[in-house]
Amino acid sequence: MELVRRLIVAGIAIPLIVALVLWAQPLHFFLVMALLVVLAQYEFYRLFPDIPFDSGTWLGLTAGAGFLYVIYLKSTGAVPPETLEAVAALLLVTVMGGTLLSGGISRMTYLPVVWLGIVYIPFLLGTILLIRGIPGGSRWILYLLAITWIVDAGGYFVGKAFGRHSMAPRISPKKTWEGAVGGALVGILASVAAAPWLPGPTSRFEMFWLGLALSVAGQLGDLVESAFKRQAGVKDSGHFLPGHGGMLDKVDSLLFNAPVLYAFLIFYVGLSSPVIV
Amino acid sequence: MELVRRLIVAGIAIPLIVALVLWAQPLHFFLVMALLVVLAQYEFYRLFPDIPFDSGTWLGLTAGAGFLYVIYLKSTGAVPPETLEAVAALLLVTVMGGTLLSGGISRMTYLPVVWLGIVYIPFLLGTILLIRGIPGGSRWILYLLAITWIVDAGGYFVGKAFGRHSMAPRISPKKTWEGAVGGALVGILASVAAAPWLPGPTSRFEMFWLGLALSVAGQLGDLVESAFKRQAGVKDSGHFLPGHGGMLDKVDSLLFNAPVLYAFLIFYVGLSSPVIV
Repeated sequence: MELVRRLIVAGIAIPLIVALVLWAQPLHFFLVMALLVVLAQYEFYRLFPDIPFDSGTWLGLTAGAGFLYVIYLKSTGAVPPETLEAVAALLLVTVMGGTLLSGGISRMTYLPVVWLGIVYIPFLLGTILLIRGIPGGSRWILYLLAITWIVDAGGYFVGKAFGRHSMAPRISPKKTWEGAVGGALVGILASVAAAPWLPGPTSRFEMFWLGLALSVAGQLGDLVESAFKRQAGVKDSGHFLPGHGGMLDKVDSLLFNAPVLYAFLIFYVGLSSPVIV
Repeated sequence: MELVRRLIVAGIAIPLIVALVLWAQPLHFFLVMALLVVLAQYEFYRLFPDIPFDSGTWLGLTAGAGFLYVIYLKSTGAVPPETLEAVAALLLVTVMGGTLLSGGISRMTYLPVVWLGIVYIPFLLGTILLIRGIPGGSRWILYLLAITWIVDAGGYFVGKAFGRHSMAPRISPKKTWEGAVGGALVGILASVAAAPWLPGPTSRFEMFWLGLALSVAGQLGDLVESAFKRQAGVKDSGHFLPGHGGMLDKVDSLLFNAPVLYAFLIFYVGLSSPVIV
Protein backbone atom coordinates (compact mmCIF):
# COMPACT_ATOMS: atom_id res chain seq x y z
CA MET A 1 0.00 0.00 0.00
CA GLU A 2 2.80 2.35 1.03
CA LEU A 3 4.52 1.73 -2.31
CA VAL A 4 1.29 2.26 -4.29
CA ARG A 5 0.66 5.59 -2.59
CA ARG A 6 4.22 6.69 -3.26
CA LEU A 7 3.87 5.74 -6.93
CA ILE A 8 0.59 7.67 -7.29
CA VAL A 9 2.08 10.83 -5.78
CA ALA A 10 5.20 10.43 -7.95
CA GLY A 11 3.06 9.90 -11.08
CA ILE A 12 1.37 13.26 -10.48
CA ALA A 13 4.40 15.14 -9.21
CA ILE A 14 7.02 14.17 -11.80
CA PRO A 15 5.28 15.58 -14.91
CA LEU A 16 4.51 18.77 -12.97
CA ILE A 17 8.14 19.09 -11.90
CA VAL A 18 9.49 18.46 -15.42
CA ALA A 19 7.15 21.12 -16.82
CA LEU A 20 8.17 23.54 -14.07
CA VAL A 21 11.91 23.03 -14.63
CA LEU A 22 11.73 23.30 -18.42
CA TRP A 23 9.13 26.01 -18.97
CA ALA A 24 8.40 28.11 -15.87
CA GLN A 25 9.42 31.77 -15.77
CA PRO A 26 12.44 32.32 -13.47
CA LEU A 27 10.24 34.23 -11.02
CA HIS A 28 7.62 31.44 -10.85
CA PHE A 29 10.32 28.81 -10.48
CA PHE A 30 11.76 30.86 -7.60
CA LEU A 31 8.36 31.15 -5.90
CA VAL A 32 7.83 27.38 -5.96
CA MET A 33 11.35 26.86 -4.60
CA ALA A 34 10.72 29.44 -1.87
CA LEU A 35 7.64 27.50 -0.73
CA LEU A 36 9.59 24.23 -0.49
CA VAL A 37 12.52 25.94 1.23
CA VAL A 38 10.44 27.66 3.92
CA LEU A 39 8.58 24.41 4.62
CA ALA A 40 11.77 22.34 4.84
CA GLN A 41 13.52 24.96 6.99
CA TYR A 42 10.53 25.06 9.34
CA GLU A 43 10.66 21.26 9.66
CA PHE A 44 14.40 21.48 10.35
CA TYR A 45 13.86 23.88 13.27
CA ARG A 46 11.12 21.62 14.69
CA LEU A 47 13.71 18.80 14.86
CA PHE A 48 15.44 20.58 17.76
CA PRO A 49 13.18 19.96 20.75
CA ASP A 50 14.85 22.62 22.94
CA ILE A 51 14.25 25.42 20.46
CA PRO A 52 10.95 27.25 20.90
CA PHE A 53 9.11 28.48 17.85
CA ASP A 54 9.42 32.21 18.50
CA SER A 55 10.77 35.43 17.03
CA GLY A 56 14.26 33.85 16.72
CA THR A 57 12.90 31.10 14.47
CA TRP A 58 10.84 33.61 12.50
CA LEU A 59 14.00 35.67 11.98
CA GLY A 60 15.67 32.52 10.62
CA LEU A 61 12.81 31.72 8.22
CA THR A 62 12.61 35.33 7.00
CA ALA A 63 16.38 35.53 6.54
CA GLY A 64 16.32 32.18 4.68
CA ALA A 65 13.61 33.36 2.27
CA GLY A 66 15.42 36.67 1.78
CA PHE A 67 18.70 34.90 1.06
CA LEU A 68 16.98 32.66 -1.51
CA TYR A 69 15.54 35.79 -3.15
CA VAL A 70 19.03 37.30 -3.46
CA ILE A 71 20.28 34.01 -4.94
CA TYR A 72 17.41 34.26 -7.46
CA LEU A 73 18.41 37.85 -8.33
CA LYS A 74 22.00 36.69 -8.82
CA SER A 75 20.84 33.79 -11.04
CA THR A 76 19.06 36.23 -13.37
CA GLY A 77 22.09 38.53 -13.56
CA ALA A 78 20.13 41.40 -11.97
CA VAL A 79 22.75 42.22 -9.32
CA PRO A 80 26.55 42.82 -9.27
CA PRO A 81 28.73 39.68 -9.17
CA GLU A 82 29.84 40.15 -5.54
CA THR A 83 26.27 40.39 -4.27
CA LEU A 84 25.98 36.91 -2.80
CA GLU A 85 29.08 37.09 -0.63
CA ALA A 86 28.34 40.66 0.52
CA VAL A 87 24.71 39.78 1.33
CA ALA A 88 25.67 36.53 3.07
CA ALA A 89 28.13 38.37 5.35
CA LEU A 90 25.61 41.12 6.15
CA LEU A 91 22.93 38.49 6.74
CA LEU A 92 25.09 36.71 9.32
CA VAL A 93 25.75 40.03 11.07
CA THR A 94 22.03 40.84 11.02
CA VAL A 95 20.94 37.43 12.30
CA MET A 96 23.53 37.44 15.10
CA GLY A 97 22.74 41.00 16.15
CA GLY A 98 18.98 40.57 15.70
CA THR A 99 18.96 37.38 17.77
CA LEU A 100 20.75 39.10 20.64
CA LEU A 101 18.58 42.25 20.50
CA SER A 102 15.32 40.30 20.32
CA GLY A 103 16.08 37.59 22.86
CA GLY A 104 19.12 38.35 25.02
CA ILE A 105 21.71 35.85 26.17
CA SER A 106 19.34 32.89 26.46
CA ARG A 107 18.76 32.88 22.73
CA MET A 108 22.51 32.87 21.94
CA THR A 109 22.57 29.16 22.76
CA TYR A 110 20.37 28.33 19.80
CA LEU A 111 21.61 31.01 17.43
CA PRO A 112 23.94 28.40 15.83
CA VAL A 113 20.93 26.21 14.91
CA VAL A 114 19.01 29.19 13.50
CA TRP A 115 21.99 30.11 11.34
CA LEU A 116 22.61 26.52 10.20
CA GLY A 117 18.95 26.36 9.11
CA ILE A 118 19.46 29.44 6.92
CA VAL A 119 22.39 27.98 5.02
CA TYR A 120 21.55 24.26 5.17
CA ILE A 121 18.33 24.59 3.17
CA PRO A 122 17.98 27.98 1.39
CA PHE A 123 21.64 28.23 0.40
CA LEU A 124 22.23 24.58 -0.58
CA LEU A 125 18.91 24.27 -2.45
CA GLY A 126 19.51 27.76 -3.87
CA THR A 127 22.35 26.34 -5.98
CA ILE A 128 19.48 24.87 -8.09
CA LEU A 129 18.47 28.46 -8.97
CA LEU A 130 22.09 29.22 -9.85
CA ILE A 131 22.25 26.12 -12.08
CA ARG A 132 19.01 27.12 -13.80
CA GLY A 133 20.57 30.54 -14.59
CA ILE A 134 23.41 28.87 -16.51
CA PRO A 135 22.86 28.38 -20.30
CA GLY A 136 21.27 24.92 -20.66
CA GLY A 137 20.78 24.80 -16.89
CA SER A 138 17.22 23.43 -17.06
CA ARG A 139 18.48 20.17 -18.57
CA TRP A 140 21.13 19.91 -15.88
CA ILE A 141 18.42 20.27 -13.22
CA LEU A 142 16.38 17.46 -14.77
CA TYR A 143 19.57 15.37 -14.78
CA LEU A 144 20.15 16.27 -11.10
CA LEU A 145 16.61 15.28 -10.08
CA ALA A 146 16.68 12.10 -12.16
CA ILE A 147 20.02 10.89 -10.77
CA THR A 148 18.99 11.71 -7.21
CA TRP A 149 15.73 9.76 -7.49
CA ILE A 150 17.27 6.89 -9.46
CA VAL A 151 19.92 6.40 -6.76
CA ASP A 152 17.19 6.60 -4.13
CA ALA A 153 14.91 4.09 -5.86
CA GLY A 154 17.83 1.84 -6.85
CA GLY A 155 19.00 1.77 -3.26
CA TYR A 156 15.50 0.95 -2.06
CA PHE A 157 14.88 -1.97 -4.41
CA VAL A 158 18.40 -3.44 -4.37
CA GLY A 159 18.45 -3.10 -0.58
CA LYS A 160 15.07 -4.86 -0.30
CA ALA A 161 16.18 -7.72 -2.53
CA PHE A 162 19.82 -8.25 -1.49
CA GLY A 163 20.38 -6.15 1.66
CA ARG A 164 22.26 -8.08 4.38
CA HIS A 165 24.80 -5.74 6.02
CA SER A 166 23.28 -2.70 7.62
CA MET A 167 25.21 0.49 7.13
CA ALA A 168 24.32 2.74 10.05
CA PRO A 169 21.91 0.78 12.28
CA ARG A 170 21.51 3.61 14.82
CA ILE A 171 20.87 6.34 12.24
CA SER A 172 18.93 4.65 9.47
CA PRO A 173 18.13 1.01 10.37
CA LYS A 174 16.89 -0.06 6.93
CA LYS A 175 19.91 1.25 5.00
CA THR A 176 22.28 -1.52 3.85
CA TRP A 177 25.66 -1.48 2.12
CA GLU A 178 24.16 -3.62 -0.66
CA GLY A 179 21.46 -1.00 -1.23
CA ALA A 180 23.99 1.85 -1.19
CA VAL A 181 26.24 0.14 -3.74
CA GLY A 182 23.25 -0.85 -5.88
CA GLY A 183 21.96 2.72 -5.84
CA ALA A 184 25.38 4.05 -6.82
CA LEU A 185 25.66 1.57 -9.72
CA VAL A 186 22.33 2.52 -11.30
CA GLY A 187 23.15 6.20 -10.64
CA ILE A 188 26.45 5.91 -12.50
CA LEU A 189 24.81 4.03 -15.40
CA ALA A 190 22.11 6.69 -15.70
CA SER A 191 24.69 9.47 -15.54
CA VAL A 192 26.77 8.00 -18.39
CA ALA A 193 23.63 7.32 -20.43
CA ALA A 194 22.53 10.96 -20.06
CA ALA A 195 25.80 12.39 -21.46
CA PRO A 196 24.68 12.91 -25.10
CA TRP A 197 21.51 14.69 -23.98
CA LEU A 198 23.24 17.28 -21.81
CA PRO A 199 24.58 20.70 -22.91
CA GLY A 200 28.24 21.53 -22.43
CA PRO A 201 31.44 19.66 -23.28
CA THR A 202 31.09 16.62 -21.01
CA SER A 203 32.66 13.26 -21.78
CA ARG A 204 31.32 9.86 -20.69
CA PHE A 205 34.38 9.64 -18.44
CA GLU A 206 33.43 12.87 -16.62
CA MET A 207 29.80 11.73 -16.38
CA PHE A 208 30.97 8.50 -14.74
CA TRP A 209 32.74 10.41 -11.96
CA LEU A 210 29.93 12.93 -11.65
CA GLY A 211 27.43 10.06 -11.29
CA LEU A 212 29.60 8.49 -8.58
CA ALA A 213 30.02 11.81 -6.74
CA LEU A 214 26.25 12.48 -6.80
CA SER A 215 25.49 8.92 -5.62
CA VAL A 216 27.80 9.30 -2.63
CA ALA A 217 26.80 12.89 -1.78
CA GLY A 218 23.07 12.17 -2.09
CA GLN A 219 23.20 9.14 0.20
CA LEU A 220 25.33 11.11 2.67
CA GLY A 221 22.77 13.94 2.61
CA ASP A 222 20.07 11.39 3.38
CA LEU A 223 22.10 10.05 6.34
CA VAL A 224 22.79 13.53 7.72
CA GLU A 225 19.10 14.38 7.67
CA SER A 226 18.29 11.03 9.30
CA ALA A 227 20.84 11.80 12.02
CA PHE A 228 19.14 15.15 12.75
CA LYS A 229 15.80 13.32 13.02
CA ARG A 230 17.39 10.66 15.20
CA GLN A 231 18.72 13.14 17.74
CA ALA A 232 15.18 14.56 17.85
CA GLY A 233 13.64 11.07 18.16
CA VAL A 234 11.22 11.36 15.22
CA LYS A 235 10.69 9.19 12.13
CA ASP A 236 9.48 11.69 9.52
CA SER A 237 10.42 15.36 9.39
CA GLY A 238 6.76 16.24 8.71
CA HIS A 239 3.62 15.03 6.94
CA PHE A 240 3.36 17.18 3.87
CA LEU A 241 2.65 14.51 1.20
CA PRO A 242 0.79 11.26 1.88
CA GLY A 243 3.23 8.36 2.03
CA HIS A 244 6.20 10.66 1.46
CA GLY A 245 7.02 11.93 4.94
CA GLY A 246 8.01 15.59 5.29
CA MET A 247 9.41 18.08 2.83
CA LEU A 248 12.85 17.87 4.43
CA ASP A 249 12.78 14.07 3.87
CA LYS A 250 12.04 14.72 0.18
CA VAL A 251 14.93 17.12 -0.39
CA ASP A 252 17.63 15.70 1.91
CA SER A 253 19.65 14.09 -0.91
CA LEU A 254 19.17 17.09 -3.21
CA LEU A 255 20.59 19.40 -0.53
CA PHE A 256 23.95 17.69 -0.93
CA ASN A 257 23.72 16.89 -4.66
CA ALA A 258 22.84 20.33 -5.95
CA PRO A 259 26.07 21.98 -4.67
CA VAL A 260 28.15 19.09 -6.05
CA LEU A 261 26.62 19.55 -9.52
CA TYR A 262 26.95 23.35 -9.30
CA ALA A 263 30.64 23.10 -8.43
CA PHE A 264 31.14 20.57 -11.26
CA LEU A 265 29.57 22.96 -13.77
CA ILE A 266 31.60 25.95 -12.53
CA PHE A 267 34.99 24.26 -12.19
CA TYR A 268 35.01 21.39 -14.71
CA VAL A 269 32.67 22.47 -17.44
CA GLY A 270 33.55 26.14 -17.02
CA LEU A 271 29.96 27.34 -17.28
CA SER A 272 28.95 30.52 -15.49
CA SER A 273 25.80 32.26 -14.38
CA PRO A 274 24.92 35.42 -16.29
CA VAL A 275 27.00 38.27 -14.87
CA ILE A 276 26.42 41.97 -15.36
CA VAL A 277 29.55 44.10 -15.43
CA MET B 1 48.30 50.11 35.15
CA GLU B 2 45.84 48.27 32.92
CA LEU B 3 45.57 51.36 30.72
CA VAL B 4 49.37 51.80 30.55
CA ARG B 5 49.85 48.20 29.44
CA ARG B 6 47.16 48.57 26.80
CA LEU B 7 48.82 51.73 25.49
CA ILE B 8 52.25 50.06 25.31
CA VAL B 9 50.87 47.10 23.34
CA ALA B 10 48.94 49.47 21.07
CA GLY B 11 52.05 51.63 20.52
CA ILE B 12 53.93 48.60 19.24
CA ALA B 13 51.05 46.97 17.37
CA ILE B 14 49.62 49.94 15.46
CA PRO B 15 52.75 50.83 13.39
CA LEU B 16 53.21 47.12 12.61
CA ILE B 17 49.59 46.84 11.48
CA VAL B 18 49.75 49.98 9.32
CA ALA B 19 52.92 48.70 7.63
CA LEU B 20 51.31 45.29 7.10
CA VAL B 21 48.13 46.74 5.56
CA LEU B 22 49.93 49.18 3.26
CA TRP B 23 53.00 47.21 2.12
CA ALA B 24 52.73 43.45 2.76
CA GLN B 25 52.45 41.06 -0.18
CA PRO B 26 48.91 39.63 -0.50
CA LEU B 27 50.19 36.18 0.51
CA HIS B 28 51.91 37.50 3.65
CA PHE B 29 48.87 39.55 4.58
CA PHE B 30 46.76 36.40 4.19
CA LEU B 31 49.12 34.38 6.40
CA VAL B 32 48.90 36.91 9.24
CA MET B 33 45.11 36.98 8.89
CA ALA B 34 45.03 33.17 8.93
CA LEU B 35 46.90 33.12 12.24
CA LEU B 36 44.47 35.59 13.85
CA VAL B 37 41.47 33.75 12.41
CA VAL B 38 42.49 30.30 13.64
CA LEU B 39 43.25 31.69 17.11
CA ALA B 40 39.94 33.57 17.34
CA GLN B 41 37.96 30.58 16.01
CA TYR B 42 39.66 28.32 18.55
CA GLU B 43 38.69 30.73 21.34
CA PHE B 44 35.13 30.79 20.01
CA TYR B 45 34.82 27.00 20.24
CA ARG B 46 36.24 27.06 23.79
CA LEU B 47 33.35 29.35 24.79
CA PHE B 48 30.93 26.42 24.48
CA PRO B 49 31.58 24.33 27.59
CA ASP B 50 29.68 21.27 26.29
CA ILE B 51 31.77 20.98 23.15
CA PRO B 52 34.85 18.77 23.51
CA PHE B 53 38.02 19.72 21.67
CA ASP B 54 38.14 16.75 19.30
CA SER B 55 38.14 15.80 15.63
CA GLY B 56 34.89 17.76 15.10
CA THR B 57 36.52 20.98 16.29
CA TRP B 58 39.64 20.25 14.25
CA LEU B 59 37.45 19.78 11.19
CA GLY B 60 35.94 23.21 11.91
CA LEU B 61 39.34 24.91 12.28
CA THR B 62 40.71 23.25 9.13
CA ALA B 63 37.61 24.15 7.14
CA GLY B 64 37.81 27.73 8.44
CA ALA B 65 41.44 28.12 7.37
CA GLY B 66 40.66 26.51 4.00
CA PHE B 67 37.72 28.85 3.45
CA LEU B 68 39.91 31.87 4.27
CA TYR B 69 42.45 30.59 1.72
CA VAL B 70 39.77 30.43 -0.98
CA ILE B 71 38.67 33.97 -0.05
CA TYR B 72 42.32 35.01 -0.48
CA LEU B 73 42.47 33.34 -3.92
CA LYS B 74 39.29 35.16 -4.90
CA SER B 75 40.71 38.48 -3.66
CA THR B 76 43.72 38.10 -5.96
CA GLY B 77 41.54 37.22 -8.96
CA ALA B 78 43.15 33.76 -9.23
CA VAL B 79 39.86 31.84 -9.37
CA PRO B 80 36.58 32.10 -11.35
CA PRO B 81 34.01 34.60 -10.01
CA GLU B 82 31.58 31.94 -8.74
CA THR B 83 34.25 30.21 -6.66
CA LEU B 84 33.25 31.54 -3.24
CA GLU B 85 29.62 30.48 -3.43
CA ALA B 86 30.46 27.07 -4.95
CA VAL B 87 33.17 26.42 -2.33
CA ALA B 88 30.98 27.63 0.55
CA ALA B 89 28.19 25.23 -0.47
CA LEU B 90 30.61 22.29 -0.88
CA LEU B 91 32.25 23.19 2.44
CA LEU B 92 28.93 23.01 4.26
CA VAL B 93 28.22 19.63 2.66
CA THR B 94 31.69 18.40 3.65
CA VAL B 95 31.49 19.66 7.23
CA MET B 96 28.00 18.18 7.74
CA GLY B 97 28.94 14.84 6.18
CA GLY B 98 32.38 14.75 7.82
CA THR B 99 30.93 15.48 11.25
CA LEU B 100 28.45 12.62 10.95
CA LEU B 101 31.01 10.15 9.57
CA SER B 102 33.62 11.00 12.20
CA GLY B 103 31.38 11.24 15.24
CA GLY B 104 27.93 9.76 14.69
CA ILE B 105 24.67 11.17 16.02
CA SER B 106 26.10 12.56 19.25
CA ARG B 107 28.19 15.07 17.33
CA MET B 108 25.19 16.34 15.32
CA THR B 109 24.10 18.33 18.36
CA TYR B 110 27.15 20.57 18.15
CA LEU B 111 27.53 20.62 14.39
CA PRO B 112 25.63 23.97 14.32
CA VAL B 113 28.28 25.55 16.59
CA VAL B 114 31.13 24.13 14.49
CA TRP B 115 29.57 25.58 11.35
CA LEU B 116 28.83 28.95 12.95
CA GLY B 117 32.52 29.14 13.97
CA ILE B 118 33.56 28.66 10.33
CA VAL B 119 31.49 31.54 9.03
CA TYR B 120 31.47 33.85 12.08
CA ILE B 121 35.23 34.41 12.04
CA PRO B 122 36.91 33.25 8.78
CA PHE B 123 34.13 34.46 6.50
CA LEU B 124 33.34 37.77 8.24
CA LEU B 125 37.02 38.67 8.77
CA GLY B 126 37.73 37.37 5.26
CA THR B 127 35.84 40.35 3.85
CA ILE B 128 38.99 42.31 4.86
CA LEU B 129 40.93 40.27 2.27
CA LEU B 130 38.22 41.03 -0.30
CA ILE B 131 38.43 44.76 0.52
CA ARG B 132 42.24 44.67 0.17
CA GLY B 133 41.81 43.15 -3.32
CA ILE B 134 39.80 46.18 -4.46
CA PRO B 135 41.79 49.05 -6.07
CA GLY B 136 42.71 51.38 -3.19
CA GLY B 137 41.53 48.76 -0.71
CA SER B 138 44.51 49.17 1.65
CA ARG B 139 43.43 52.69 2.52
CA TRP B 140 39.88 51.49 3.15
CA ILE B 141 41.24 48.87 5.57
CA LEU B 142 43.18 51.52 7.52
CA TYR B 143 39.97 53.55 7.62
CA LEU B 144 38.08 50.46 8.87
CA LEU B 145 40.60 49.77 11.63
CA ALA B 146 40.82 53.44 12.64
CA ILE B 147 37.04 53.93 12.88
CA THR B 148 36.62 50.67 14.80
CA TRP B 149 39.27 51.60 17.36
CA ILE B 150 38.19 55.25 17.61
CA VAL B 151 34.61 54.20 18.38
CA ASP B 152 35.97 51.70 20.90
CA ALA B 153 38.26 54.21 22.62
CA GLY B 154 35.67 57.00 22.41
CA GLY B 155 33.08 54.75 24.02
CA TYR B 156 35.55 53.81 26.77
CA PHE B 157 36.54 57.36 27.72
CA VAL B 158 33.13 59.00 27.29
CA GLY B 159 31.55 56.11 29.22
CA LYS B 160 34.10 56.49 32.02
CA ALA B 161 33.51 60.24 32.28
CA PHE B 162 29.76 60.55 31.73
CA GLY B 163 28.32 57.00 31.83
CA ARG B 164 25.19 56.79 33.97
CA HIS B 165 22.66 54.52 32.22
CA SER B 166 23.90 51.01 31.64
CA MET B 167 22.98 49.52 28.31
CA ALA B 168 22.96 45.76 28.80
CA PRO B 169 23.80 45.08 32.46
CA ARG B 170 23.60 41.30 32.10
CA ILE B 171 25.76 41.10 28.97
CA SER B 172 28.35 43.84 29.39
CA PRO B 173 27.98 45.58 32.78
CA LYS B 174 30.33 48.49 32.07
CA LYS B 175 28.71 49.51 28.77
CA THR B 176 26.58 52.65 29.07
CA TRP B 177 24.31 54.47 26.62
CA GLU B 178 26.42 57.60 27.12
CA GLY B 179 29.54 55.69 26.09
CA ALA B 180 27.81 54.16 23.06
CA VAL B 181 26.56 57.55 21.85
CA GLY B 182 29.94 59.18 22.55
CA GLY B 183 31.74 56.44 20.62
CA ALA B 184 29.34 56.85 17.69
CA LEU B 185 29.86 60.64 17.64
CA VAL B 186 33.65 60.48 17.46
CA GLY B 187 33.34 57.63 14.92
CA ILE B 188 31.13 59.75 12.66
CA LEU B 189 33.45 62.75 13.00
CA ALA B 190 36.49 60.65 12.11
CA SER B 191 34.64 59.11 9.16
CA VAL B 192 33.71 62.48 7.67
CA ALA B 193 37.23 63.80 8.29
CA ALA B 194 38.74 60.82 6.43
CA ALA B 195 36.71 61.44 3.24
CA PRO B 196 39.33 63.43 1.23
CA TRP B 197 42.01 60.82 1.96
CA LEU B 198 40.02 57.82 0.67
CA PRO B 199 39.92 56.50 -2.91
CA GLY B 200 36.62 56.27 -4.76
CA PRO B 201 33.80 58.73 -5.28
CA THR B 202 32.59 59.19 -1.70
CA SER B 203 30.90 62.34 -0.44
CA ARG B 204 30.99 63.65 3.14
CA PHE B 205 27.29 62.82 3.30
CA GLU B 206 27.98 59.15 2.48
CA MET B 207 30.89 59.08 4.95
CA PHE B 208 28.56 60.38 7.67
CA TRP B 209 26.16 57.46 7.18
CA LEU B 210 28.99 54.95 6.79
CA GLY B 211 30.53 56.23 10.05
CA LEU B 212 27.18 55.84 11.80
CA ALA B 213 26.64 52.34 10.37
CA LEU B 214 30.14 51.23 11.44
CA SER B 215 29.66 52.69 14.93
CA VAL B 216 26.43 50.77 15.43
CA ALA B 217 27.63 47.52 13.83
CA GLY B 218 30.93 47.54 15.72
CA GLN B 219 29.29 48.04 19.10
CA LEU B 220 26.71 45.36 18.25
CA GLY B 221 29.53 42.97 17.31
CA ASP B 222 31.14 43.67 20.67
CA LEU B 223 27.84 42.92 22.47
CA VAL B 224 27.30 39.67 20.53
CA GLU B 225 30.75 38.42 21.47
CA SER B 226 30.17 39.44 25.09
CA ALA B 227 26.91 37.49 25.06
CA PHE B 228 28.73 34.36 23.84
CA LYS B 229 31.23 34.81 26.68
CA ARG B 230 28.43 35.42 29.13
CA GLN B 231 26.62 32.17 28.28
CA ALA B 232 29.99 30.44 28.86
CA GLY B 233 30.57 32.37 32.12
CA VAL B 234 34.03 33.74 31.24
CA LYS B 235 35.41 37.29 31.21
CA ASP B 236 38.05 37.19 28.47
CA SER B 237 37.95 34.93 25.43
CA GLY B 238 41.65 34.09 25.95
CA HIS B 239 44.96 35.55 27.10
CA PHE B 240 46.90 36.21 23.92
CA LEU B 241 48.13 39.78 24.54
CA PRO B 242 48.93 41.20 28.00
CA GLY B 243 46.15 43.56 29.08
CA HIS B 244 44.18 42.95 25.89
CA GLY B 245 42.23 39.76 26.68
CA GLY B 246 41.84 37.20 23.92
CA MET B 247 42.09 37.45 20.15
CA LEU B 248 38.32 37.13 19.78
CA ASP B 249 37.91 40.13 22.14
CA LYS B 250 40.24 42.12 19.88
CA VAL B 251 38.37 41.41 16.65
CA ASP B 252 34.74 41.29 17.84
CA SER B 253 33.83 44.74 16.48
CA LEU B 254 35.77 44.21 13.26
CA LEU B 255 33.82 41.00 12.59
CA PHE B 256 30.69 43.09 12.13
CA ASN B 257 32.31 46.20 10.66
CA ALA B 258 34.27 44.57 7.86
CA PRO B 259 31.16 43.14 6.10
CA VAL B 260 29.36 46.49 6.44
CA LEU B 261 32.27 48.31 4.76
CA TYR B 262 32.61 45.60 2.09
CA ALA B 263 28.90 45.85 1.22
CA PHE B 264 29.18 49.66 1.15
CA LEU B 265 32.07 49.49 -1.32
CA ILE B 266 30.31 46.94 -3.55
CA PHE B 267 26.83 48.48 -3.59
CA TYR B 268 27.34 52.23 -3.04
CA VAL B 269 30.77 52.98 -4.40
CA GLY B 270 30.50 50.30 -7.09
CA LEU B 271 34.02 49.01 -6.57
CA SER B 272 34.76 45.37 -7.34
CA SER B 273 37.41 42.80 -6.58
CA PRO B 274 39.59 41.79 -9.52
CA VAL B 275 37.70 39.22 -11.58
CA ILE B 276 39.12 36.94 -14.24
CA VAL B 277 36.77 36.21 -17.13
